[in-house]
Amino acid sequence: MPTREAAIFPVTTNDRLLRAAKGAHVDRAPVWLMRQAGRYLPEYRKAREGRDFFDTCRDPDLVAEITLQPIRRFPLDAAIIFSDILVVPQAMGMKVEMVSGRGPVFPNPIASTADLAALIRPDVDESLGYVFEAISRTRTALGGRVPLIGFSGAPWTLMAYMVEGSGSKTFSMARAWLHTRPRESQNLLEMLTETIIEYLAGQIRAGAQMVQLFDSWAGLLGPADYRRHAFPHLVRIGEALKLQFPDVPLALFPRGAHYILEDVAESPYDVLSLDWTIDPAVARRRTRGAITLQGNLDPILLFAETRTIRESVRSMIEGFGVQRYIANLGHGIMPEHDPERVADFVRAVHEFSTDVNEKG
Amino acid sequence: MPTREAAIFPVTTNDRLLRAAKGAHVDRAPVWLMRQAGRYLPEYRKAREGRDFFDTCRDPDLVAEITLQPIRRFPLDAAIIFSDILVVPQAMGMKVEMVSGRGPVFPNPIASTADLAALIRPDVDESLGYVFEAISRTRTALGGRVPLIGFSGAPWTLMAYMVEGSGSKTFSMARAWLHTRPRESQNLLEMLTETIIEYLAGQIRAGAQMVQLFDSWAGLLGPADYRRHAFPHLVRIGEALKLQFPDVPLALFPRGAHYILEDVAESPYDVLSLDWTIDPAVARRRTRGAITLQGNLDPILLFAETRTIRESVRSMIEGFGVQRYIANLGHGIMPEHDPERVADFVRAVHEFSTDVNEKG
Repeated sequence: MPTREAAIFPVTTNDRLLRAAKGAHVDRAPVWLMRQAGRYLPEYRKAREGRDFFDTCRDPDLVAEITLQPIRRFPLDAAIIFSDILVVPQAMGMKVEMVSGRGPVFPNPIASTADLAALIRPDVDESLGYVFEAISRTRTALGGRVPLIGFSGAPWTLMAYMVEGSGSKTFSMARAWLHTRPRESQNLLEMLTETIIEYLAGQIRAGAQMVQLFDSWAGLLGPADYRRHAFPHLVRIGEALKLQFPDVPLALFPRGAHYILEDVAESPYDVLSLDWTIDPAVARRRTRGAITLQGNLDPILLFAETRTIRESVRSMIEGFGVQRYIANLGHGIMPEHDPERVADFVRAVHEFSTDVNEKG
Repeated sequence: MPTREAAIFPVTTNDRLLRAAKGAHVDRAPVWLMRQAGRYLPEYRKAREGRDFFDTCRDPDLVAEITLQPIRRFPLDAAIIFSDILVVPQAMGMKVEMVSGRGPVFPNPIASTADLAALIRPDVDESLGYVFEAISRTRTALGGRVPLIGFSGAPWTLMAYMVEGSGSKTFSMARAWLHTRPRESQNLLEMLTETIIEYLAGQIRAGAQMVQLFDSWAGLLGPADYRRHAFPHLVRIGEALKLQFPDVPLALFPRGAHYILEDVAESPYDVLSLDWTIDPAVARRRTRGAITLQGNLDPILLFAETRTIRESVRSMIEGFGVQRYIANLGHGIMPEHDPERVADFVRAVHEFSTDVNEKG
């Protein structure tokens, strides 16, 4: 199915992100930041004021406004649609609440075969159409300034929340399910996989120009379990999307799964997003230049002084190199971060990541 | 200074653990489990009944009883003294409470230069003598059946708790300190380092036959930060102890710090304990046989059925090999675990880790 691309959206003038994702030459590394639209921005807090988190996600105009806020403030090379990975479990019929100071909570997590059977295989246009609508409006509002990124949670990470019921240090219940209810876990992961494929396809058709899978809890599984229970579903999602949208870059963030780098490099994904425990030069060596790398400054460094941020960005870029690279953090911006330090980060990337061939 | 060894303790008849730690040949892999004395055992819950956690740690006879409980139940190759890593911050003058369902809490975490200045550099014999006494009594009570392991938290992990004030998913405040208060962080880490050296030396003199450093929050730091702020202190501890006690094996558990394996292999440590995200064969390759490896079954597998536990143990041992190896979990036993599944684990290690040369 064709995307709305040519038909209705202005031409994207800054295509650094898409070029880097596909391995084409860039004048300097593109840069965006995970959670760049969020609580650290006073204009975000103002826009959200008093509104429930998921209600905000369901208001396409407000989503477009929030998504554009960091683009107005910083010279970024991409916008990422403001939403949450847990809209998918919601679409499958689960109740999810965002509890202040605690994060997402499922009042009725999946605990039985009956709970599993009650899950809906959603019609994404119907139950997640609000995300597609928000993407189209945001894409129009961006006016071609930078590309728009869509995203979804990965099957394992969504299952982890759905079984555990909330964020957790260990997600013990969800991890135990993989071993105590292997068949049911597999069914749940497959249902999530097929839903995610349709959800991301819908995002792309609505105007998303790259999509990223967040496997936030990848690192809670050991290498054998991740390769057996989680990674095959990610490959399936990548293959299905490539078949429909061969030109749309796919990014994967397998947070904490340091052992999976080589596998991702040989998968359908174009971009491998790295957390801050991965040394840039080591990642480059292990992936043999077969994939674009994205990341990975420890967000804690945004609490440091400008000088320290600049030194860290320089050493990060020296490690990754400027080509086949997308500068980012190794995890999301925190609510306590100062927008001025975020500006320092973006400025340092601009300054230190200019292709040396262009300099001469 | 000499240990009490020859003078007062019975000869240790099962020295598999110590032989494996030093790289000597063993008939089968030794096995013990992190948190083997703990809440999953009904006899532990009975012994503790109603008593405060840290009061329990301060009662040498009760500690000896609790430490021996798993040894009576399972054919293990080591006992580990029942205690907690946070007794060191307590000895430095900090208040620590064990809050049911929440874990350790510091009502007054370190938040200022004044808080730092108020810390005591403890006389370990005076403030931690109860641990030494417990070690001596336990060693006697063990009657030479298996060796006794002592332990301490690593400097970074203790600092993480002392600054953060409790367990945390991200330890953001503690991590920020490293960058916003580098000099003070360094001072704190050095003070902890010198205290830990004296504390572990005291444990060895009291009868501990191997000591393990738990760096439970190692993996929250990226490779550059860990190599700069944490690892040098661990090397210093290792060197200082080796100078005094060249024959006592030293073990290090840098949980989550997958990037540090090669460095540990070249350090004064004899044993590298691994979490479950490290593939056994990869660890062996990366450390080039230069160090004994310990670990690393995902404790979540103890919720699975016997058959699954056995298969996992077999594949773990195939990955590590039988020599220069100490079988263990990749993290502690959980309170919800069934002692019968722990027995399955120990049995499977016995069965699958017999040296093939002995079999023929």
